[in-house]
Amino acid sequence: MATQTPSDKKTPPDKKAAPDSTRRSERSRHAIYDAALSLVGEIGYPRTTIEGIAARAGVGKQTIYRWWGSKAEVLLEAFLDLGEQAARDAGGTDVYALPDTGDLAADLKHVLRLTVDQLTDPRFEAPSRALAAEGVVNEQVGRKFTEQLLMPNLRLYVDRVRAAQEAGQVRQEIDPRIALELWVSPLAQRWLQFTGPISYEYTDTLVDYALYGIAPR
Amino acid sequence: MATQTPSDKKTPPDKKAAPDSTRRSERSRHAIYDAALSLVGEIGYPRTTIEGIAARAGVGKQTIYRWWGSKAEVLLEAFLDLGEQAARDAGGTDVYALPDTGDLAADLKHVLRLTVDQLTDPRFEAPSRALAAEGVVNEQVGRKFTEQLLMPNLRLYVDRVRAAQEAGQVRQEIDPRIALELWVSPLAQRWLQFTGPISYEYTDTLVDYALYGIAPR
Repeated sequence: MATQTPSDKKTPPDKKAAPDSTRRSERSRHAIYDAALSLVGEIGYPRTTIEGIAARAGVGKQTIYRWWGSKAEVLLEAFLDLGEQAARDAGGTDVYALPDTGDLAADLKHVLRLTVDQLTDPRFEAPSRALAAEGVVNEQVGRKFTEQLLMPNLRLYVDRVRAAQEAGQVRQEIDPRIALELWVSPLAQRWLQFTGPISYEYTDTLVDYALYGIAPR
Repeated sequence: MATQTPSDKKTPPDKKAAPDSTRRSERSRHAIYDAALSLVGEIGYPRTTIEGIAARAGVGKQTIYRWWGSKAEVLLEAFLDLGEQAARDAGGTDVYALPDTGDLAADLKHVLRLTVDQLTDPRFEAPSRALAAEGVVNEQVGRKFTEQLLMPNLRLYVDRVRAAQEAGQVRQEIDPRIALELWVSPLAQRWLQFTGPISYEYTDTLVDYALYGIAPR
């Protein structure tokens, strides 16, 4: 499948990049991301190879090996880039931002609605499912992608819950790392296991239940 | 891989079963369950075939086709049987029972501790992961197994939360179907995505947070 293209020879790895070659590199980089995401969504993680990504992106496989050490690393960066794109499309300036308006419920509902949009975005869905499926059966892949793609988002929730604790809106004895799972995990399970429909109303409800509990107050 | 064994010829499908052949059928049935679960755990759902299951179980593939229409159906029943076995091993008499002692928190904690045991049971783990992974990328398989293996358990939680509502221990406006996700989904996500360790202390904490919420009371 993979072929060396002439462009490989024109852009040796150690050559200092001129503006033109930087643009060319950026184009290649995005072609590689697109190829990696579409391929993994179509044929799954195990059958996706560097050679296959190179062939679909129209680059030589050495172009990929110059920048990344493995298909896992290519995919990791492709997902990070996709997340940044999605955040820009949603009008956000900083992908790793969680608002603090002082109203914890409103802030959580806002971010979860963006997550609902992302989970149902067709650019995101097939490749994300392929990667998630591999992570379920391949602990090394699962831990790597959880650590690099999921945990940065979870840490934002930890910070936001801590701020709410300081503001007296969350009980002091609550562990923020567990608390966030009350709204993150139900949405994740519905998406992963088709256990129920996903909607803004649903995620709003999760936030209310998590904050106030199901027992009478 | 698959071979017709002489025993197929001795047990035609329409012959009325005598006690001996019933015992023989039971043995075959359990050999098929064991083969299906071990095989799917080793090579994954897509590569598991009726022929492969038959070869490993030491039966002819017609023996399998006599009882089941597809590998999905074999696996479904194998999992149901495994769940029943695990419940018996845990000293339970009824696999589909959720206690109602009048103390909702205690009852939920009790059942979740059994779930922790099951999720970390090696007989269960590899085949369950293989099936869950396939369900993430194959919506038809995902929905089938969620409906037949997961939903019966979720419905027990719905019933238990409804009883608690009648007893005034859960607010009337709470949707039990969503409420149960506050403790079921975090545990599921930690198991599926390696997002954190699984322990009794953790599931106890989930129940407390779900009942009383994270906001001050």
